[in-house]
Amino acid sequence: MAKELTSRKENYSQWYNDLVIKADLAESSAVRGCMVIKPYGYAIWEKIQGELDRMFKETGHVNAYFPLFIPKSFFSREAEHVEGFAKECAVVTHYRLKNDEKGKGLVVDEAAKLEEELIVRPTSETIIWNTYKGWIQSYRDLPILVNQWANVVRWEMRTRLFLRTTEFLWQEGHTAHATREEALEETLKMLNVYATFAEKYLALPVIKGVKTETEKFAGALDTYTIETLMQDGKALQGGTSHFLGQNFARAFDVKFLNKEGKLDYVWATSWGVTTRLIGALIMAHSDDNGLVLPPKISPIHVVIVPIHKNDEQLAAISVEAERIKNSLTELGLAVKYDNRDTHKPGWKFAEYELKGVPVRLAIGPRDLENGTVEVARRDTLEKSVMPVEGIALNVKKLLDDIQDNIYQKALQFRDNNTFAVDTWDEFKEVVEVKGGFAYAHWDGTPETEARIKEETKATIRCIPLHNKPEDGKCILTGKPSKQRVLFAVAY
Amino acid sequence: MAKELTSRKENYSQWYNDLVIKADLAESSAVRGCMVIKPYGYAIWEKIQGELDRMFKETGHVNAYFPLFIPKSFFSREAEHVEGFAKECAVVTHYRLKNDEKGKGLVVDEAAKLEEELIVRPTSETIIWNTYKGWIQSYRDLPILVNQWANVVRWEMRTRLFLRTTEFLWQEGHTAHATREEALEETLKMLNVYATFAEKYLALPVIKGVKTETEKFAGALDTYTIETLMQDGKALQGGTSHFLGQNFARAFDVKFLNKEGKLDYVWATSWGVTTRLIGALIMAHSDDNGLVLPPKISPIHVVIVPIHKNDEQLAAISVEAERIKNSLTELGLAVKYDNRDTHKPGWKFAEYELKGVPVRLAIGPRDLENGTVEVARRDTLEKSVMPVEGIALNVKKLLDDIQDNIYQKALQFRDNNTFAVDTWDEFKEVVEVKGGFAYAHWDGTPETEARIKEETKATIRCIPLHNKPEDGKCILTGKPSKQRVLFAVAY
Repeated sequence: MAKELTSRKENYSQWYNDLVIKADLAESSAVRGCMVIKPYGYAIWEKIQGELDRMFKETGHVNAYFPLFIPKSFFSREAEHVEGFAKECAVVTHYRLKNDEKGKGLVVDEAAKLEEELIVRPTSETIIWNTYKGWIQSYRDLPILVNQWANVVRWEMRTRLFLRTTEFLWQEGHTAHATREEALEETLKMLNVYATFAEKYLALPVIKGVKTETEKFAGALDTYTIETLMQDGKALQGGTSHFLGQNFARAFDVKFLNKEGKLDYVWATSWGVTTRLIGALIMAHSDDNGLVLPPKISPIHVVIVPIHKNDEQLAAISVEAERIKNSLTELGLAVKYDNRDTHKPGWKFAEYELKGVPVRLAIGPRDLENGTVEVARRDTLEKSVMPVEGIALNVKKLLDDIQDNIYQKALQFRDNNTFAVDTWDEFKEVVEVKGGFAYAHWDGTPETEARIKEETKATIRCIPLHNKPEDGKCILTGKPSKQRVLFAVAY
Repeated sequence: MAKELTSRKENYSQWYNDLVIKADLAESSAVRGCMVIKPYGYAIWEKIQGELDRMFKETGHVNAYFPLFIPKSFFSREAEHVEGFAKECAVVTHYRLKNDEKGKGLVVDEAAKLEEELIVRPTSETIIWNTYKGWIQSYRDLPILVNQWANVVRWEMRTRLFLRTTEFLWQEGHTAHATREEALEETLKMLNVYATFAEKYLALPVIKGVKTETEKFAGALDTYTIETLMQDGKALQGGTSHFLGQNFARAFDVKFLNKEGKLDYVWATSWGVTTRLIGALIMAHSDDNGLVLPPKISPIHVVIVPIHKNDEQLAAISVEAERIKNSLTELGLAVKYDNRDTHKPGWKFAEYELKGVPVRLAIGPRDLENGTVEVARRDTLEKSVMPVEGIALNVKKLLDDIQDNIYQKALQFRDNNTFAVDTWDEFKEVVEVKGGFAYAHWDGTPETEARIKEETKATIRCIPLHNKPEDGKCILTGKPSKQRVLFAVAY
């Protein structure tokens, strides 16, 4: 295989980078920290977008679009938002270039300085709530259930393709409600949409929970999260749903006349997932041969490769291949017939393994004689011979098996790497040596949380929903605790 | 009707602004020149995106994503691009904010100044060709047929919702080819995709042509365009497809080994349409009652309004309405049943006229008795009574009629407002008084073109494709001319 990967065992981080590049998913650009999402990577994002967008619409949401730029002063309006939110952002200060009079080429026109700087949106609560002010007068104008697909920019110091980039793509839902209960219900509804999507489509088992005060979104009353575990034992936050209370309504003075005829501030939520999900997808399922894509999110479901020695054989195989392709396409599957004569079958096999195509069919002259086709599944690399008769339905069933198997494998991995620990040594053994999730008692203070992070890099990923109350002692301080929380070193 | 519009006759420009606001399509934002696209306006954009994206994919294109930011120096690489392209753009100079030490709030951190300024993309040829350099070595890597859906920023001085905004949404196709012929073929193929889309979906008749040297895209060898006529007699450019030759490949040193084993520069095209199309849609078809949306691009095809005096009547009507709704939905139509008791039927009628819903069904107690439904079409405002029996197929047919009628009406309008003129006075009469397209002889010089623009504001919209050669004299200079070109005052 021309494009050999570093193995996971050898260097997990290098394996990930190799894979993103060699599978043609994305690459670094000329602009520091910004990536180019290549067609194959973008096709995965389109699958993610398509399914999520459908789920958002089925739950009553509509899309809209708000400006890329936010006046600097907007960030100061919500006190916690400005304090807690990273200040690393792209600042637009001028609106014109000009040809330098001394022949230095294109320079910034100092005469075109903005009165107030504009920030390239790192998230849109401020500009959106400033807009909602004009949309909401009475409870009749509520709820507002709006989502936006957009690019956002956060000036990250250390970046990695998909996982952490200066610019990334995401969706951000921003809803407005008449009551606290309704907003809370929406927050949890969208958390569940994310969890369902992650498990059913990305084949990623998740733990739903709520963030601690330290880890929550700046400006939220509560941040809910779905947490996933990667193959190297690190956690990855897959999506968050924020209950914002009345904070942004207060900051932007968004009041409404409620059913009782009284003025009240509007209740808010926001929720988002990003292109980071593609990073999670890669790191959770892929192997040393390349990507392993769950069929439901794979741009190509089936690739057909002809095995032939001459043009005559190829012609005969192509007739059969096109027939099979059509029968699969009719079932709604995305099929590629790769009859290029510029590459050998072995090269193609390796290429589609690298790209994670769930099912590969190979057809040779012998298969034509026997009415068979060789079927290889990407997840287990197992091969079998199937009759051409009924191949479409059998492949469809196989794809369901693969989807399920990838999920079960990830679930088993997570179960095998989740530990209930009761002592500091056990805790350190998990988060520093073995890797994985550690359920441990914590005394509930931000100070202890900070000390644990400082000493081990592990953070509280979440306080799981529906956590069982259990008396115990904090692993660090020995102080009493009422429940275990979920710790891990995270991406 | 609560939301009365200014009439077109009274003030066309005000009518347009009123309509955009009152039909809930878009509004101005807190950021100068940037608009908020509201859910109803964005739903139209989603329809446009959906159809175009399908057409792009059917013609072999894939989507990708390139960075929002472009290093300033990239713009200087292609000489005509930097000279001709507007220098009004958003310039990012810093990457961090901080809390002011003197308590002035959030300020730009001067320590976080970028070494090289970043420009928020006004168009992406430069960053994309810089990327393609790494993708292309040999003719085997060609063609590259990539499209991007993105936001772009051009610092416009005078902005109007949809028609000209500082930030707008668009798609930009950027393709790379081994030969001049193939690139030219692609340029015209995409022009035809745009023309087909405009005529079949937006119901906008277009004139295809090529821009003059003065009007072409800076950096292109040739710019092809589709030109449309608005109801006020002004032209609007609906989309452009550029034959870029080898200009950007030269600027970014993108060479490939051709089939003959020689190094050559790669041939390029780029092509785009923007949210401006929504402005065109509004200005071409709508009337003093509100939007008139061609069914193929309308977010809602049919609205059903119950006419009732009491809850009992409403309950009976709702059964029938839901049945009709289901039968329409099964045919793939988007249907809304508006049974809100907060608004009267008359208010709803006006509301959906304002929003341009192509077909309205009204059902009252009498209709239930008679097995009928009142059908109103938005384009002609005609009402008729139809039997409930077979209503779905009849409405589907009606929608086709409406689509066709809107197109024919626009075509007739254009024909009635297109004039072949032979003298300067006739020319001025058309472009300054009557409005419309003027086919006129021009001596082919940029000087004459500039003088005509200066004196009348009219520009050469295009030299129509397949123009008939015809000897004549330039309307301004009287010099000999071989063909008529298309003039108009344009948006």
